[in-house]
Amino acid sequence: MPILRLALAQTNPRLGDFSHNSLHIVNTVRYAFDHGADLVAFGEMVLTGYPIEDLATRPDFLKESWAVLQRVAKDIADAGAGSIPVLVGFPHGPVDDVEHSAHSPSAIAYNSVAVLQDGRVIGIYNKHHLPNYSVFDEYRIFRPGHDAVVVHVAGADIALAICEDIWREGGPVAAIAEVKPSLLLVMNGSPFEREKDEVRLPLVQRRAEQVNAPVVYLNIVGGQDDLVFDGGSFVTNSSGKLLARAHQFVEQTLVMDIDLKESSSHGAQLGPGVAVIDAGYGHPQRLSRTPVHAEIAPQLEINEQIWDALVLGMRDYVEKNGFSSVILGLSGGIDSAVCAALAVDAIGPERVYGVSMPSRYSSDHSRSDADDLAERLGIHIRTESIADLVLPVEQQLHLEGISAENLQARIRGIILMGLSNAEGHLVLTTGNKTEIAVGYSTIYGDSVGGFAPIRDVPKTLVWELAQWRNAHARKKGLTPPIPENSITKPPSAELRPGQVDQDTLPDYDVLDAILDAYITERVGRDVIIARGFEPNMVDRVITLVDRAEWKRRQGAIGPKISQMAFGRDRRLPVTFTRN
Amino acid sequence: MPILRLALAQTNPRLGDFSHNSLHIVNTVRYAFDHGADLVAFGEMVLTGYPIEDLATRPDFLKESWAVLQRVAKDIADAGAGSIPVLVGFPHGPVDDVEHSAHSPSAIAYNSVAVLQDGRVIGIYNKHHLPNYSVFDEYRIFRPGHDAVVVHVAGADIALAICEDIWREGGPVAAIAEVKPSLLLVMNGSPFEREKDEVRLPLVQRRAEQVNAPVVYLNIVGGQDDLVFDGGSFVTNSSGKLLARAHQFVEQTLVMDIDLKESSSHGAQLGPGVAVIDAGYGHPQRLSRTPVHAEIAPQLEINEQIWDALVLGMRDYVEKNGFSSVILGLSGGIDSAVCAALAVDAIGPERVYGVSMPSRYSSDHSRSDADDLAERLGIHIRTESIADLVLPVEQQLHLEGISAENLQARIRGIILMGLSNAEGHLVLTTGNKTEIAVGYSTIYGDSVGGFAPIRDVPKTLVWELAQWRNAHARKKGLTPPIPENSITKPPSAELRPGQVDQDTLPDYDVLDAILDAYITERVGRDVIIARGFEPNMVDRVITLVDRAEWKRRQGAIGPKISQMAFGRDRRLPVTFTRN
Repeated sequence: MPILRLALAQTNPRLGDFSHNSLHIVNTVRYAFDHGADLVAFGEMVLTGYPIEDLATRPDFLKESWAVLQRVAKDIADAGAGSIPVLVGFPHGPVDDVEHSAHSPSAIAYNSVAVLQDGRVIGIYNKHHLPNYSVFDEYRIFRPGHDAVVVHVAGADIALAICEDIWREGGPVAAIAEVKPSLLLVMNGSPFEREKDEVRLPLVQRRAEQVNAPVVYLNIVGGQDDLVFDGGSFVTNSSGKLLARAHQFVEQTLVMDIDLKESSSHGAQLGPGVAVIDAGYGHPQRLSRTPVHAEIAPQLEINEQIWDALVLGMRDYVEKNGFSSVILGLSGGIDSAVCAALAVDAIGPERVYGVSMPSRYSSDHSRSDADDLAERLGIHIRTESIADLVLPVEQQLHLEGISAENLQARIRGIILMGLSNAEGHLVLTTGNKTEIAVGYSTIYGDSVGGFAPIRDVPKTLVWELAQWRNAHARKKGLTPPIPENSITKPPSAELRPGQVDQDTLPDYDVLDAILDAYITERVGRDVIIARGFEPNMVDRVITLVDRAEWKRRQGAIGPKISQMAFGRDRRLPVTFTRN
Repeated sequence: MPILRLALAQTNPRLGDFSHNSLHIVNTVRYAFDHGADLVAFGEMVLTGYPIEDLATRPDFLKESWAVLQRVAKDIADAGAGSIPVLVGFPHGPVDDVEHSAHSPSAIAYNSVAVLQDGRVIGIYNKHHLPNYSVFDEYRIFRPGHDAVVVHVAGADIALAICEDIWREGGPVAAIAEVKPSLLLVMNGSPFEREKDEVRLPLVQRRAEQVNAPVVYLNIVGGQDDLVFDGGSFVTNSSGKLLARAHQFVEQTLVMDIDLKESSSHGAQLGPGVAVIDAGYGHPQRLSRTPVHAEIAPQLEINEQIWDALVLGMRDYVEKNGFSSVILGLSGGIDSAVCAALAVDAIGPERVYGVSMPSRYSSDHSRSDADDLAERLGIHIRTESIADLVLPVEQQLHLEGISAENLQARIRGIILMGLSNAEGHLVLTTGNKTEIAVGYSTIYGDSVGGFAPIRDVPKTLVWELAQWRNAHARKKGLTPPIPENSITKPPSAELRPGQVDQDTLPDYDVLDAILDAYITERVGRDVIIARGFEPNMVDRVITLVDRAEWKRRQGAIGPKISQMAFGRDRRLPVTFTRN
């Protein structure tokens, strides 16, 4: 029974940044080699970042990617680590062959993993199953692969798969089982969703039993626009028992020894449609090294997972776009308080700028709660009253009623964008999923901004997260970051005297339950009513959602934490007059 | 040789508006029946409108659609026209079967055509090929069909296909050729693109020769968000000769007699995978009616096609979203002049409101050209000076340089949105494709608005269209709508004294040529340089485009007239740090 030392690199690639990604790959391989690894594996598409969307359809991008891949292979060899196989995800193209016309004319690449050794590419596996639902558009931009690939190293057979390949029944796993691999290695670019880790483990356990071998589930980590890849890579044995798990939301190279069954290929070919790649004898010191034991990182509770996903999503959006700081309006309400707390956890208080923008309708507590928040968080705060800026516009245009309410929100938007332009901050827009879903916001007003931290967080969950975050601080003996008053007071936009959200909207408990059914579950009116909601209420909410499409399309993106976020805004038509 | 009278209904469905669409279908069938038709055909997905995007993944929507289809069949019979077959495009689902797991889990419907007769659905054809490139996402939301369908009527065999089915080599056309149909009837939802009609006709001619039968290419018409379906339905004989053509950009029911070869099925089954639907003897008075001859509508020259597409796109966006009027800023420049002229052609001058918003930097001609334009077009115009509104913000926030320039554009945005809220106008944003591509605009400033008439029109084409529209007016002895001075003066944003676009941007001729190569053709740096452009210039433009992604994502949609519009904003990742 060969004992293989795996180095599973859970890295955070930067999209399109070849120099960062290739340097990071080479350094990680060097680290793994120094720790005696027989094989180093990275996640899906680590060379380019993921998802690359229509960049995959550009021949120049694909050619550059291929050139970079060759250079990475050489750099690894030059660093003295060329003798072990290294598995790197990349887009493989451009290809042009007879299959072309049968598929999307823009798909000229495969979603692939290259096996690097001795300074060159010694084999390539092309992903078979291309997800084209939810946030995935892979059938649009990639072609499906057909062959199985086994990497023969140090007496073991490592079968390869990429992400969706193992989610489909009747996928390549059946073919892989027939070659009796020593290990199934699955490279993933699998974004975070609430409770998704409760789906991944049982799936992998089932596949382990199917192929009768241990399975490595290797994920990338990091925020990429509206997606957050949560890492949490893990390994099970052939009966599905958990052998190792990496932390969620951080970069980590998991090094572990694993006891594998003998190769059945012995480095020779196994049959049609299965490529066996002979990748040598493993690490040169493999017989003399000290054994290492794998870590099993503890699982985070769900609110901590969500909080960390939101933090990572923001941090990476800020860093990957090169912003030094963020700015946001502080109303004293719960949404801006949670966004500010997330920002502090993401990039530190000295890079967070709050602006209190009181109007003639603002309550005293809106200012005092904002000040309290800023003090608790240690962030910058300034006050820019909007009264003298609103009045001239209101008078010149004779605005009143809702038009005048919207004007206040838009003047606030102008202030934030002006300060952003002058001082270089990224503007955070603080709308939550509930208000975005029903259009309870001012377009070009409070919806202004480049990043929306809680865009996919329903209002009821905003409160829950605030309470969780405060409790988390208390547990550590620290000051709870969010003022209690911001959590307990009735939510209000404060655009006219005495206004509260529930003048216009149903109770948030009811509203969020209906929204969850209609948007996330995608069930219709009758099903929702059958669950006990009032027909009038259901109709009212559905009408609000259907009419808010345009506002949603104009808003900024944010980290995605559920099956159906509004990140894919164009997925519902705008002129949709269903009654 | 049976002579069949076809009624080809080139209609403009409203997305999701079942009551409008079904009434329109029934009325059109009634009209066709009164004109002696043996068969009535409608375009792709006319029951729901097209494209329905993720509505196709909602079981409640699909069930409603099926119920409406049955009611339409009954209503046609009740109107006394039930004896002739009627072909209606609709989404066919929800289905749940063994195939499910092999495809997108959200795809629970087919893209189908129903054959209605005698008050019920007597047959269904499911589209085989699901386009999933460019603006199409059909593989995401539909399942592929597998069987061929032949409608046997009045002694002829009518084979069915839907749109993409005939664009793929090796598609169902080969199977159709084997059944030796009398006619191939193709229902389409085919959006307008520059010069697309020069592709459609040769394609259909090739298919006619392949199946050795006449081919009907039936399209829908109308604007739907960023798509414009141009109609232009046509019929060729079996050698590809054009027999009939409908007008572009208008609803029309083309009634024509066509001489067809005898059925080979004789109403019996033709083999596995081919369903023959017996649809009777045609119109009850078919033997006594007076022959009709088909019209061949003249082809429009390319600039007229583009102009009409932009006009239809705007008209339908305004009407389908229920707006009574539009409002736009009039700067005296070419972009706002062309947008205003388009608006007048779309909905008439009395529904168009112009606002001149001079600043302290505005030239005299910016006001006089705006006034001249308004007078030529007969639209409403008012002046709202921004000087007194900009100053308080500028002073309170200490804005200068580009921040102050952006502020001016944002105050103009606030004025337009305020008037929109107060008076109910749809705001038009007047940015052209060139400035959107390179980000030469102020986010939440001049990019504010619900509809962007020239979003997909490069600057050089804006000038060309202006000249074409003026010449078109002159030819008819009418006043040219666009002031000559707006066409000839150097373009300027007028945000600081003496500013012109070419302070910041390359000459528009060069810029548009590079953009066309990079964006539409999707070729890379080296290829563009090889065409003779300066390397520094090419790098500068590519960098501008890559960095402008975020601004584009925030903008409004507009009619699409080329292969790669920015309508699909999410198709390029935002954090894309390629160097």
